[in-house]
Amino acid sequence: MSELAEQAALGSGADFWTTKQVGPVPAIVLTDGPHGVRKQVAASDQLGIAENVPATCFPPAAGLGQSWDPGLVERIGTALGRESQALGVHVLLGPGINIKRDPRCGRNFEYYSEDPFVSGVLGAAWVRGVQGEGVGACVKHFAANNQEYDRMRVSADVDPRTLREIYLRAFQRVVAEADPWSLMCSYNRVNGVLASQNEWLLTKVLRDEWGFQGVVVSDWGAVADRPAAVAAGLDLEMPGGGAATDDDVVVAVGNGSLDPARVARAADRVTALATRTTAAHREGAEFDADAHHLLAREAAARSIVLLQNKGDLLPLDSSKHLAVIGEFAQQPRYQGGGSSHVTPTRLDVPMEEIGARAEVTFAPGFSTDGSGDAAALREDAVQAAATAHTAVVFLGLAARQESEGADRADIEIPPEQLELLTAVVAAQPRTVVVLIHGSVLRVAPITIAPAILDAALLGQGGGAALADVLFGAVNPSGKLTETVPVRLQDVPAYGNFPGEHGHVRYGEGLQVGYRWYDARELPVTFPFGHGLSYTTFEYSDLVVDPSLQARVTITNTGTRTGREVAQFYVSVPGSSVERAPRQLVAFGSATLAPGESATVETTIDRADLAYWDVRVDCWLVESGEYVVSVGSSSRDLRGQVAVEVTGDEFRLPVTLESSLAEALSDPATATALGGLLSATFGAELTAEAAGTDLAVLLGALPVGRLVAFSGGQLTRAHLEQLLTAAREG
Amino acid sequence: MSELAEQAALGSGADFWTTKQVGPVPAIVLTDGPHGVRKQVAASDQLGIAENVPATCFPPAAGLGQSWDPGLVERIGTALGRESQALGVHVLLGPGINIKRDPRCGRNFEYYSEDPFVSGVLGAAWVRGVQGEGVGACVKHFAANNQEYDRMRVSADVDPRTLREIYLRAFQRVVAEADPWSLMCSYNRVNGVLASQNEWLLTKVLRDEWGFQGVVVSDWGAVADRPAAVAAGLDLEMPGGGAATDDDVVVAVGNGSLDPARVARAADRVTALATRTTAAHREGAEFDADAHHLLAREAAARSIVLLQNKGDLLPLDSSKHLAVIGEFAQQPRYQGGGSSHVTPTRLDVPMEEIGARAEVTFAPGFSTDGSGDAAALREDAVQAAATAHTAVVFLGLAARQESEGADRADIEIPPEQLELLTAVVAAQPRTVVVLIHGSVLRVAPITIAPAILDAALLGQGGGAALADVLFGAVNPSGKLTETVPVRLQDVPAYGNFPGEHGHVRYGEGLQVGYRWYDARELPVTFPFGHGLSYTTFEYSDLVVDPSLQARVTITNTGTRTGREVAQFYVSVPGSSVERAPRQLVAFGSATLAPGESATVETTIDRADLAYWDVRVDCWLVESGEYVVSVGSSSRDLRGQVAVEVTGDEFRLPVTLESSLAEALSDPATATALGGLLSATFGAELTAEAAGTDLAVLLGALPVGRLVAFSGGQLTRAHLEQLLTAAREG
Repeated sequence: MSELAEQAALGSGADFWTTKQVGPVPAIVLTDGPHGVRKQVAASDQLGIAENVPATCFPPAAGLGQSWDPGLVERIGTALGRESQALGVHVLLGPGINIKRDPRCGRNFEYYSEDPFVSGVLGAAWVRGVQGEGVGACVKHFAANNQEYDRMRVSADVDPRTLREIYLRAFQRVVAEADPWSLMCSYNRVNGVLASQNEWLLTKVLRDEWGFQGVVVSDWGAVADRPAAVAAGLDLEMPGGGAATDDDVVVAVGNGSLDPARVARAADRVTALATRTTAAHREGAEFDADAHHLLAREAAARSIVLLQNKGDLLPLDSSKHLAVIGEFAQQPRYQGGGSSHVTPTRLDVPMEEIGARAEVTFAPGFSTDGSGDAAALREDAVQAAATAHTAVVFLGLAARQESEGADRADIEIPPEQLELLTAVVAAQPRTVVVLIHGSVLRVAPITIAPAILDAALLGQGGGAALADVLFGAVNPSGKLTETVPVRLQDVPAYGNFPGEHGHVRYGEGLQVGYRWYDARELPVTFPFGHGLSYTTFEYSDLVVDPSLQARVTITNTGTRTGREVAQFYVSVPGSSVERAPRQLVAFGSATLAPGESATVETTIDRADLAYWDVRVDCWLVESGEYVVSVGSSSRDLRGQVAVEVTGDEFRLPVTLESSLAEALSDPATATALGGLLSATFGAELTAEAAGTDLAVLLGALPVGRLVAFSGGQLTRAHLEQLLTAAREG
Repeated sequence: MSELAEQAALGSGADFWTTKQVGPVPAIVLTDGPHGVRKQVAASDQLGIAENVPATCFPPAAGLGQSWDPGLVERIGTALGRESQALGVHVLLGPGINIKRDPRCGRNFEYYSEDPFVSGVLGAAWVRGVQGEGVGACVKHFAANNQEYDRMRVSADVDPRTLREIYLRAFQRVVAEADPWSLMCSYNRVNGVLASQNEWLLTKVLRDEWGFQGVVVSDWGAVADRPAAVAAGLDLEMPGGGAATDDDVVVAVGNGSLDPARVARAADRVTALATRTTAAHREGAEFDADAHHLLAREAAARSIVLLQNKGDLLPLDSSKHLAVIGEFAQQPRYQGGGSSHVTPTRLDVPMEEIGARAEVTFAPGFSTDGSGDAAALREDAVQAAATAHTAVVFLGLAARQESEGADRADIEIPPEQLELLTAVVAAQPRTVVVLIHGSVLRVAPITIAPAILDAALLGQGGGAALADVLFGAVNPSGKLTETVPVRLQDVPAYGNFPGEHGHVRYGEGLQVGYRWYDARELPVTFPFGHGLSYTTFEYSDLVVDPSLQARVTITNTGTRTGREVAQFYVSVPGSSVERAPRQLVAFGSATLAPGESATVETTIDRADLAYWDVRVDCWLVESGEYVVSVGSSSRDLRGQVAVEVTGDEFRLPVTLESSLAEALSDPATATALGGLLSATFGAELTAEAAGTDLAVLLGALPVGRLVAFSGGQLTRAHLEQLLTAAREG
């Protein structure tokens, strides 16, 4: 085998999950994550869907994100790293940090948030945890992969500022903060170019700008043209099995269409990853399944959001008789379908866990597959609810309704479930809803229940975690990482999702998630960042110093120990560019006993104040007043201070394309141009101006267009000279 | 002068308003419209803003569009043509048919509508009228010029389907139906390329596809690079004055960067226009200023929309004492500022016209320039209102608030006017508001007045027209051509208008105007197409036959003769592409005596059912059910029928980029691919699929990507062969 052939061979897999052993370079195993290690039992099949080895099923990102707890996420990363070691996995495919652009995206359950800051912070924590155990992370899916519909072809048409500030931002943070050893390019196109062949994305942005040093792996089947992908910066095509695309690479080098240095570069990177991960591999490692199950349960409890708790209906009194309603209590739904679908080591069943703590009557209430007599199921449930002290109703979506590969058409809770709940609440006002779902639902109709726990998807420890929260053994502290809208028609991408004929227009621009609802001043059912507790918290003494250190004092004013996640948002009231009304820039938490106070301290990264300036293709911090708010949610703000920031030095050069207003506001050119204007247009400048504002009209004129209005007196060359002379002073 | 130099010379003006006389080719005069002939008195100045010769000021498009009366618009076109003849004008710059994308656009008063159908129909009528008199029309501003902010540089970033269906559609209709002799390219960029240098726009679309035969004139000062503009299809740069850009053309031909055939082609077109218009010129023509004033008044009356008339407060009783409030009644505001600003031949003053019909007390009520004592002005007005039988309050925007060159920051009626109105209504429940404005305002706060007349901008006959409508001499029949939103935050382009740093994102896509409010199911204050009458109409017997002839019977069920504009909207419930919930495709009107019935008959153009398919870059009519609704407004639908339409023959060829689902649904390739799939993936296709729907997952796979999942069994060449064989087989 020639050196080139060997290099090419290193750039594609040996089979579905393994790279090739080439000369001294060992083969390594990559396996699906992110919330558990999905290692297949048998030799890999061609579609990668065969049976898996049991592994701990931690809460999927939709749940875990609600913890707002990077420490917890890092501990889970560590556990995943250990399980990977034990199962012979060198690279674990995660974290998934795509932005939840629309609640209908079928894979939202694998992602953390609609916000890039929280996605990036949690993603970085995951990477640190996994890689701390000598296992590579593989940040995915890069980039702008925000839907499942036509995901292998669709072009995400996104303007550059939005791409930078929303869709690339979390990736940039993870690369900067956690140095992931690999990254997975997505299936889709970004502004017309397949991510796997997108040199701008994979080389210019990722490596040249961000300094990424790791391996770029293709999503499984994302490569259409291997030489083009290698040229763009892709290092490893997965899955593999044949040598056809390796041969394509050799041929392309041979005919001069592919630079051999790019092939060598990719091979070097794959070699480095293989060397590093095999060196770190601990043969015979084991993992503590019991401890990991307890961690999964702890994480699940921390992921639960108390959406509503009227009359302090929760926590429940274990001495009282409960009606537990809904099949999900017995047949737990705890993860989504697709590549992340883990075979758990064990599974806590909510009904059993609740039943272990109180006297319980169970009624299924409804079926998720249309089987059974809906009226009879409902009647039984109502009966059970009416005769119990409190009813706990499990509602949500069935597994087949949320899965990789398909988006949802709506965000409705199934109507039979709403009918059931209405009947139960009528019979039993003391009703708690536990809502199980991987992505956002229209929750407004279930707010008829006085208490609602958002259980998202909780992984294998969710059953016990729910019991812990329901009975108060754990005081809930989760906060939403996605807005719950009043109606599907209110969501930012409505009408622009999921696109058609190969294109999806990111028409809402920057105003994704809470940014949209705030900008349009739309009511929401529950805002981003919302989450109640069994206790209450007061905020005081918010301070943000000039170095952007932020401090706020939080006091537990209730009667139970609890944890509060304080969120820091920034507004730029005098900004020269479109901004979100508020943007998350930091968060921190404190766990406090009743009456206890603590200071939550955090530093706002100056980089998070910047906007992406498309005129010069770089980040810029504006000078001026930044208003920092602290809140218990994005719409429950508890304090606000202004801080003066000195921006980046920046001046656009005046050219013939500059407007007269711009040229006249630049000291270097103002005098010369002003003189020219009066000499050329003196009379007209003071004339009656047809009912219009001549200063505004003329101010918008590009300097070079003065030629057209000079009646032959000026030429472009003349103006060019004048600008050059003025600039040189 | 060489032939080339002569050709180049023909391609730019001699001065601000005149082309060059070159050899036998005569010079011609182009002058601003569109709602009057703005011929300058003196030799033209360099900015084109000197004093004008008086000419009839017809209602600007913001008013005239509300007539929904192409016959009336054509008669005005005829009058404008005659005035042009009398004033020595060969080409009148109009009609302005840009889409009112956002109510804040400062030049909306020059445009007809947020809807391309009504804009195109009225624009074509205008062109027929003017050109019928031997004067050239110049349709403008081509294209996607929907804001004033940074208009000379900003790139309208619009996806191709939206561009075709919304922003180019009216131009396409005018070219097809009225054969305009010239067209004006706009200042802005379209998807990054200056309209003046945009070959796709000026040649491929306009000429190659639409068959436009006339001259493309630059907007005044729109050309940055003359040779590039000539290459793209621009024929005439305006204004002129020097030979610099002519020289540029000669040089560019000389150095081979510009094809001389393009210069010749432009010169030929300018020659044809000059020849044609000078041949049609009637030396010594005069116009009948009295007749034209009466036409202006008739048009003004027809442009007024009765927004609200609670308790049949209107028409007024001329035997009763009126309080007329608001400076606009004495100092009429009747047109916008900028290039269309006409010096009228005379001017009807509302206060005088109302005073001629009834006993009137006048109070200014407020000042529009902050002068005077607001409280005292208000108090006087309230006094006058309280002691009168009915109050008529003129509210609106001052001239300086709406002008070419500047967009508005909000859509508010000035707060002092709202304060005044609140006080007047409290004192006098019988209050009529007359609202004067060039573009949409937030009208909700003034709905406290029982009656509201939307007077838009009415031209020089507006004063008498308003009196005619107020007292019932004319029964109002205008209908809104733009939605009145509840809040600025509801408008489609909110957050995407007017862009920044050289780009504006048309993020709302197709859902412009009422399409947006309908798609998002947003409440509006007054819907598109709304307008009441002093009588009432019933609709019956809607029929749409298979040739798309539509008929509906309208009956005047009230007590006054009146005119009703019936609007036909189409929905495509089973469409394969995003559609507006309803789209205007036809309208017609009937004037009926009390008790009288008539059939309004119209033909829906099959072309208006088509969507623009970006996969194949052409219009396509889908087969299926089209639902035609008829309404008195877009939200006051009075009948609905379904009609089955046989669509265009169309099948996308199956390629390696086709999805498996597409390939399997094509009879030509289904069998071969089906066989291949079972042979390659037999086992997995029936396997448990990790909680996901394998058919959906696989269905989305492009045929060519099967290679990646075949474990080396398949190559792209292999699949290509199979598709070729299947297609030929």
